[in-house]
Amino acid sequence: MNYSIILKIIGWVIQLEGIFFLPPALTGFLYGEIKDALIYLILGALCIVLGGLFRMHKNKKTTFYAKEGFVAVALSWIVMSAIGAIPFVLTGDIPSYPDALFEIISGLTTTGSSILTNVEALSHANLLWRSFSHWIGGMGVLVFILAILPMTGGSTMNLMKAESPGPSVGKLVPKMQQTAFLLYAIYFAMTVVEIILLLIGGMPLFDSICHSFGTAGTGGFGIKNDSIAGYSTYLQNVITVFMFLFGVNFSFYYYILIRKVKDAFRMEEVRWYFFLFLGAVTLITISLVADGGKVGESIQTVAFQVASIMTTTGYATADFNLWPQFAKGLMVVLMFIGACAGSTGGGIKVSRIMIYLKQVRKELMQQIHPKRIRVLKMDNKVLEHSVVHSCNTLLMAYILIFIVSLLLICLDGFDMTTNFTSIAATLNNIGPGLNVVGPTGNFSEFSALSKFVLMFDMLAGRLEIIPMMVLFHPGTWKK
Amino acid sequence: MNYSIILKIIGWVIQLEGIFFLPPALTGFLYGEIKDALIYLILGALCIVLGGLFRMHKNKKTTFYAKEGFVAVALSWIVMSAIGAIPFVLTGDIPSYPDALFEIISGLTTTGSSILTNVEALSHANLLWRSFSHWIGGMGVLVFILAILPMTGGSTMNLMKAESPGPSVGKLVPKMQQTAFLLYAIYFAMTVVEIILLLIGGMPLFDSICHSFGTAGTGGFGIKNDSIAGYSTYLQNVITVFMFLFGVNFSFYYYILIRKVKDAFRMEEVRWYFFLFLGAVTLITISLVADGGKVGESIQTVAFQVASIMTTTGYATADFNLWPQFAKGLMVVLMFIGACAGSTGGGIKVSRIMIYLKQVRKELMQQIHPKRIRVLKMDNKVLEHSVVHSCNTLLMAYILIFIVSLLLICLDGFDMTTNFTSIAATLNNIGPGLNVVGPTGNFSEFSALSKFVLMFDMLAGRLEIIPMMVLFHPGTWKK
Repeated sequence: MNYSIILKIIGWVIQLEGIFFLPPALTGFLYGEIKDALIYLILGALCIVLGGLFRMHKNKKTTFYAKEGFVAVALSWIVMSAIGAIPFVLTGDIPSYPDALFEIISGLTTTGSSILTNVEALSHANLLWRSFSHWIGGMGVLVFILAILPMTGGSTMNLMKAESPGPSVGKLVPKMQQTAFLLYAIYFAMTVVEIILLLIGGMPLFDSICHSFGTAGTGGFGIKNDSIAGYSTYLQNVITVFMFLFGVNFSFYYYILIRKVKDAFRMEEVRWYFFLFLGAVTLITISLVADGGKVGESIQTVAFQVASIMTTTGYATADFNLWPQFAKGLMVVLMFIGACAGSTGGGIKVSRIMIYLKQVRKELMQQIHPKRIRVLKMDNKVLEHSVVHSCNTLLMAYILIFIVSLLLICLDGFDMTTNFTSIAATLNNIGPGLNVVGPTGNFSEFSALSKFVLMFDMLAGRLEIIPMMVLFHPGTWKK
Repeated sequence: MNYSIILKIIGWVIQLEGIFFLPPALTGFLYGEIKDALIYLILGALCIVLGGLFRMHKNKKTTFYAKEGFVAVALSWIVMSAIGAIPFVLTGDIPSYPDALFEIISGLTTTGSSILTNVEALSHANLLWRSFSHWIGGMGVLVFILAILPMTGGSTMNLMKAESPGPSVGKLVPKMQQTAFLLYAIYFAMTVVEIILLLIGGMPLFDSICHSFGTAGTGGFGIKNDSIAGYSTYLQNVITVFMFLFGVNFSFYYYILIRKVKDAFRMEEVRWYFFLFLGAVTLITISLVADGGKVGESIQTVAFQVASIMTTTGYATADFNLWPQFAKGLMVVLMFIGACAGSTGGGIKVSRIMIYLKQVRKELMQQIHPKRIRVLKMDNKVLEHSVVHSCNTLLMAYILIFIVSLLLICLDGFDMTTNFTSIAATLNNIGPGLNVVGPTGNFSEFSALSKFVLMFDMLAGRLEIIPMMVLFHPGTWKK
């Protein structure tokens, strides 16, 4: 284990978090919340000093394997969360540290599950920090570091592999640093466009920024107790469109940028994502209309909710807890499918679902025509065996973590739907589930043990399980 | 497609079913239910004639591939069910044919889910037929045919592969016919021992036979409205032990028969199965005792229920719907794991779960020590890639069918737990689920569409999905 480079990476992460404390500090000053502003400012300064201490250690070895990549990423996220929770406690808005930790992990992993019963009681500085954490976590803090700092050789690849969601990191451009920079450029530009469109619709600047951060990271923390329900139809539609757009594989936007528009629209995953969205909206709208809803209104609400759940954002304009069972069932299925790989969305990812279905079809065809030789393809390229294999083991690890988590939170005695959808909502980084944790509920009633289980699940979901398993496996730390 | 051999196999199956109608006919005569007895007798005679007509067709081709094996098995099971439902309708005990079909599919697939609200109203002939269908379906009717009829070459292997549960057919003895015969011999002997032990405990002969059939096939149809709850503790314990024993991989008994006792106890799957059972009983007992139950009584009840669910039998002595959430959650997990491969039990099978977990561990270790080369092993033998691969695709096909079925039965508007556990209970061939379909409930309230979905799931679960998918895939029937 190359400890020195891991320490160095964590040092960078801490310093970066120090800088990320500035926007909430500034917000505090602007809104006259001087105590909160000073807390963020002083913490930020401390982080820069502390991170510097971590980085003082001289680098001896430069070897950096996949194992170190996983450990560095998992530890970075834990350290970032541990520090990020402090301002909530010091400002007094979330006095319990475990609760504050839950809230910031939920923020950074872009889950959006909350233990707060009244978000409107928070200071502006804290509200901004909550929403900003979605934006930071959406694209990934290590990807950010890669974008601004030059790193050597294979190390970058292994970091990016561990932090970026999806079956394989698309090498958009040959150099990792360029890829990372480009991803953030697209991310930043789209966020700004959303802020502007929300401002045009009459949403106040503060609200626009917070909601754009939440949309961009597909996080879902709102700043109102009724989430997005209180805003105009125009504003809701803008958010619907942007939730959908941030759930698209960012390679799509890259192709468009370099004018390979045809290649962009040929991406199988994006097509499936689009048709899944369309199909789900159609079916759920029919189900609501059959239940007595108005067509136009239903389409608008359903599009919002489907985009919100499928991209694992978790904003709400309606309580889908009250929808017919079929609509609820479909929503739960969408929770697991999630968004595209290479987007800021969570879940199992559309491309993995495709790989699973393609394998089933191949197996079937193999039985029907045993003499024909078949290969699995995606975007007309043969899928490497290792990619398929790691997709498969991820599914199994995913189910394993799901089951163990479910049994542990069952100890709290809530009903099965609450338990099942709590794990689904955290492991897939969505936010709300059904029943107790439905769109109008929250996670405050769970025991401390359950909260820790759910925190682990949020991190495991965001980092796609393997980094967290490697971190906690005793074999990693032997010798 | 080799139609002539498929027709021939179906002909055998129909004739065999005609012979299987004799025990209920005899029962009818003994209990003075002359009308019922005659119905079974006449139907039996018709089956023998009809099956003979199917077999008249001259065999031209002798080639017989996996595809034909799957189609023959899937069609055989559908034909057997379609015919097996008729006596229920003609005797008037289940007047609706779709309901009768549900009941017999549930019987043959050893599921044990019922649409009946009052089983005690059935005639003895029909009760015996219900329970006997578990015994027939448990080991498989085609395996039975293989045991008594000589078939040529690869055909037997392909039939056995399609009907026998588990990742790979253990070749106990070089010749298929001998294997099939041996399996039925063990099966028959164990059933007789159970009948004797139940008689010793004072259970009437008719009850003993029916319950032993239900235990042997891990089916679960009872002949009383309160299932097994009304019998003495001794009788319940006998059934607990036999449910557990029929869930063991039959290779275990074969090894013991040929005095390779060490090999028997070295079987990894059987060890896991045993420790899973022990672990689940311990945890659930603790959970019940913490909830105020008495230790001794709880152990006895829990052992019964865990054996019943894990082996996918489905007998009940207690309403686990009323247990604490943790106990219920664990029961649901056990529903999916199921029993050993090569047993009469259903579910995903312990050996497959092991293969999944071994893959996750291998992937993890690969990340931690990338230079070491690892292979997957079971019972100290390297697992063939094709076995692992078909386990993986089975999991995906399983999840796919689960989701589609769930969405379809959601249309009925029952709560999520009912819907989820209905699919779990039928696809895993268990019987009862939770809430509406809990141990004291039944499946009568579902719509016709849902009942057909659940019938498909029972067959798909018993035949491990692929045969049903091959049968319904248009590609199978092209050219």
